[in-house]
Amino acid sequence: MLVETSHPGNIGGAARAMKNMSLDQLVLVNPKQFPCAEATSRASGADDILMNASVVKTVDEALNGCSLVIGTTARPRNLYLPELDPRECAERVMDESLKGEVAVLFGREDSGLSNEELDRCNLLMRIPTSQDYSSLNLGAAVQVLAYELMMQRGTQLKRPVGEVVRQYPLATADEMEGLFGHIEKVIIETGFLDPENPRQVMRRLRRLFNRAEVDHNEINILRGILTSINSNMGRSRNV
Amino acid sequence: MLVETSHPGNIGGAARAMKNMSLDQLVLVNPKQFPCAEATSRASGADDILMNASVVKTVDEALNGCSLVIGTTARPRNLYLPELDPRECAERVMDESLKGEVAVLFGREDSGLSNEELDRCNLLMRIPTSQDYSSLNLGAAVQVLAYELMMQRGTQLKRPVGEVVRQYPLATADEMEGLFGHIEKVIIETGFLDPENPRQVMRRLRRLFNRAEVDHNEINILRGILTSINSNMGRSRNV
Repeated sequence: MLVETSHPGNIGGAARAMKNMSLDQLVLVNPKQFPCAEATSRASGADDILMNASVVKTVDEALNGCSLVIGTTARPRNLYLPELDPRECAERVMDESLKGEVAVLFGREDSGLSNEELDRCNLLMRIPTSQDYSSLNLGAAVQVLAYELMMQRGTQLKRPVGEVVRQYPLATADEMEGLFGHIEKVIIETGFLDPENPRQVMRRLRRLFNRAEVDHNEINILRGILTSINSNMGRSRNV
Repeated sequence: MLVETSHPGNIGGAARAMKNMSLDQLVLVNPKQFPCAEATSRASGADDILMNASVVKTVDEALNGCSLVIGTTARPRNLYLPELDPRECAERVMDESLKGEVAVLFGREDSGLSNEELDRCNLLMRIPTSQDYSSLNLGAAVQVLAYELMMQRGTQLKRPVGEVVRQYPLATADEMEGLFGHIEKVIIETGFLDPENPRQVMRRLRRLFNRAEVDHNEINILRGILTSINSNMGRSRNV
C-alpha cells in the first residue's frame, strides 16, 4: 500500500519491483496523480500491476479486512512498536499471510506515514541505512522488501523468531477500530478522557494494543468488559 | 561498476542506492550520457557520489587493480562460474574487501554483460525473481546488493529482533500484578467476571498485556482508567 505518493514514477517503480518478485496486490491510497504515463513508463513490463491496482481514498478503506498491518519508517522512532528489519519483516509477512491479509504501508516521499497512520500499525519495518543519508527512494524501499519476500519463499518452513502460537486468528483492522472506538467512548463517559483535551491517551492505548497483536477472542473479552462497564454506568444514571 | 548504461536516470538511482548504504566508489564504463541532469535529479542527495565517480572507457581499465570480480546476471547461465544470491555475494564481498579491491559489474539495461565481460569475472551474482518477469531495473538491482552489504555490516551491531524503542522503562512485575488485581476487581464489580465461575478470563487478559510488554507510563494510563471506572461505579451506589 502506497500512501499519498507524490511522484507517479515511484508508483511505476514499485509496481515493477513487485512484479519482479511475484507480488501483485498494489493498493494506492489517494495518489497525487494516477493513472499517469510516467508511472506506466517506469513500470516497464509491469503495467498489469498498475491496471489491477486498487485506488482508495483513505488508509481506513485500504486496511479493511487486514489482520496484520506493518508500517515502514526511514528512521528509528519512539512509537512503542516492535521495529523489524526487512528480513525479519518478510518472515512475519510470509507466516501471517497463510492466516490472513497482511498490509505493508509505505508513506509519502517527503514525510512518510502520519502519526494517525502509524496508529493503525502492529509493527514497524525499517531498512538499515547510512546514518547520514537514510531516505531511500520509494521504489527502492519496495524493492528491498519484495526481494526479502522472494528470498523468504525460497527458505520457508522455518518459524519466525518470537512467533506467538495462536489458537484464534488475529483481529482484523476494522475489529481493532471497533475496539478503540468503544474504549474511547467508555473513558469519556467515566471522565478519564476529556474530549476537549485528549492529550496522547488514545494514541498510547492504540500503540499498546496494536503491539499486543490482539486476536479475535481477546477482542470479544475486551468488548465484553467495556459493555459491562457501559451497562453499569447506564444503571447508575437510571437510579 | 555500471557498464554502458543507456539511461542516465539509472546512474542516478544507483548512486542514491549506494549512498543510502554507505558505499561510495561508483565506476561508469563508457556511459551513453554523463554527466546529465536526469542522473543528478534521480540521485537526489547523492550527487557527491556522481561527482566523485570514475568514468572510464573500458571494463579492462575499470578492473585494473581489482582482485575479486563479480558479474551480475538476470537469468541462470551456463557459464561454469559459481552463482551466488545477493546475500551470499555480500558475504564474499565483505570478506574479500578486507584483503583487496572487489568489483561488482552491472551490465547494460537491455542485454546485460557481454561474454567477454563475463570472462573477466570470478563469480556471478543473480537476484532471485519471478520466472515470468526477471529483469530488474538497474538501480533496483544495485539497491538489493547495497542493502545486503549493509545488512552484512550490521550483523554485529544489531539490536534484538523486534525490540521496541522505548521512552519509559518496562513495568515491573509488581506493577503488572497491581494492574491485574485492579482489572479483576473492576470486572467483578461490573459483573463481567463471576468469581464463582471465573473461566479463563484473567488468564487471557494476563497473556494479552504481558505480550504487549507494558511500560511504566502505560501502567499509569491503565490504572487511571480503572480508577475512573471505580469512582463512577462508586457514585452510582451513593445515588
